[in-house]
Amino acid sequence: MLILGIDPGLAIVGWGVLDFNNSRFRTVAYGSIQTPAGMETSRRLLGIYWELNGIIEKYHPEQMAIEELFFTKNITTGIRVAEARGVVLLCGEKAGIPLSEYTPMQVKQAVAGYGLADKNQVIQMVTRILNLPAPPKPDDTADALAIAICHAHSGCSRLAEYYNK
Amino acid sequence: MLILGIDPGLAIVGWGVLDFNNSRFRTVAYGSIQTPAGMETSRRLLGIYWELNGIIEKYHPEQMAIEELFFTKNITTGIRVAEARGVVLLCGEKAGIPLSEYTPMQVKQAVAGYGLADKNQVIQMVTRILNLPAPPKPDDTADALAIAICHAHSGCSRLAEYYNK
Repeated sequence: MLILGIDPGLAIVGWGVLDFNNSRFRTVAYGSIQTPAGMETSRRLLGIYWELNGIIEKYHPEQMAIEELFFTKNITTGIRVAEARGVVLLCGEKAGIPLSEYTPMQVKQAVAGYGLADKNQVIQMVTRILNLPAPPKPDDTADALAIAICHAHSGCSRLAEYYNK
Repeated sequence: MLILGIDPGLAIVGWGVLDFNNSRFRTVAYGSIQTPAGMETSRRLLGIYWELNGIIEKYHPEQMAIEELFFTKNITTGIRVAEARGVVLLCGEKAGIPLSEYTPMQVKQAVAGYGLADKNQVIQMVTRILNLPAPPKPDDTADALAIAICHAHSGCSRLAEYYNK
């Protein structure tokens, strides 16, 4: 089962495609969509839209997993992240891909074993679980892979795998 | 100059198309895009995307004006509004329409003469300025028309009119 994990943002959208079969991962591709800070928001959103559509067309993920948004720090930044997240959800829905959402705590729990793991622990665990040669950069890419791993380990994903057999 | 005003939201997107020429308004069309509360967010966003694309294709607005988002009350609702707003910005940018953003205070100031006007005063003024037979419903539609009026009265809009001549 091909899973596209997404860590949404306006400046950086992390993404990762994992193939999860018989409880084993194969890392298909990962990277980040980056938009320049000086550019108008609407243009940055359009850039994300085109890039993400391209990734979906290239890899044909069967499922998408995306992080749920919580505002704890900066509300203005949060609005921009949510706008980008809206575009990401749109791209998935437009392509007819089932979407699942996970809280940061669920993702940390799934990858590092406990919900209060720090960023570095998550990155290290992603690198180890997927047997990557080096930690994915930027951190948003590692987060996207963590979200895909979280989805693979969730019951929702297993159910889909069962029905696809 | 054809202006599309948008009041973004996930449940209701108000919209209004005004033709502004020689300081006079002609009301072209207005309405609202509504998505059912029980539906998944991504499907609701896709609904907004298709509907808004349809409106843009039908009326060919030359400029778009949208309300800036401030979170004062409910952050969770705010996130959903921002996601819908991201899709609205995307639709405008994808169609190559110049976008302008206004704060609620700017809109109230432009329509009702002062920035702390209440909702009913804005609706009444929109109805009067556009010489409408009745106040537009729902309120989001009246707000969208108010945003379009605000844009027409702004310097940015006048400049575009000047260059289009």
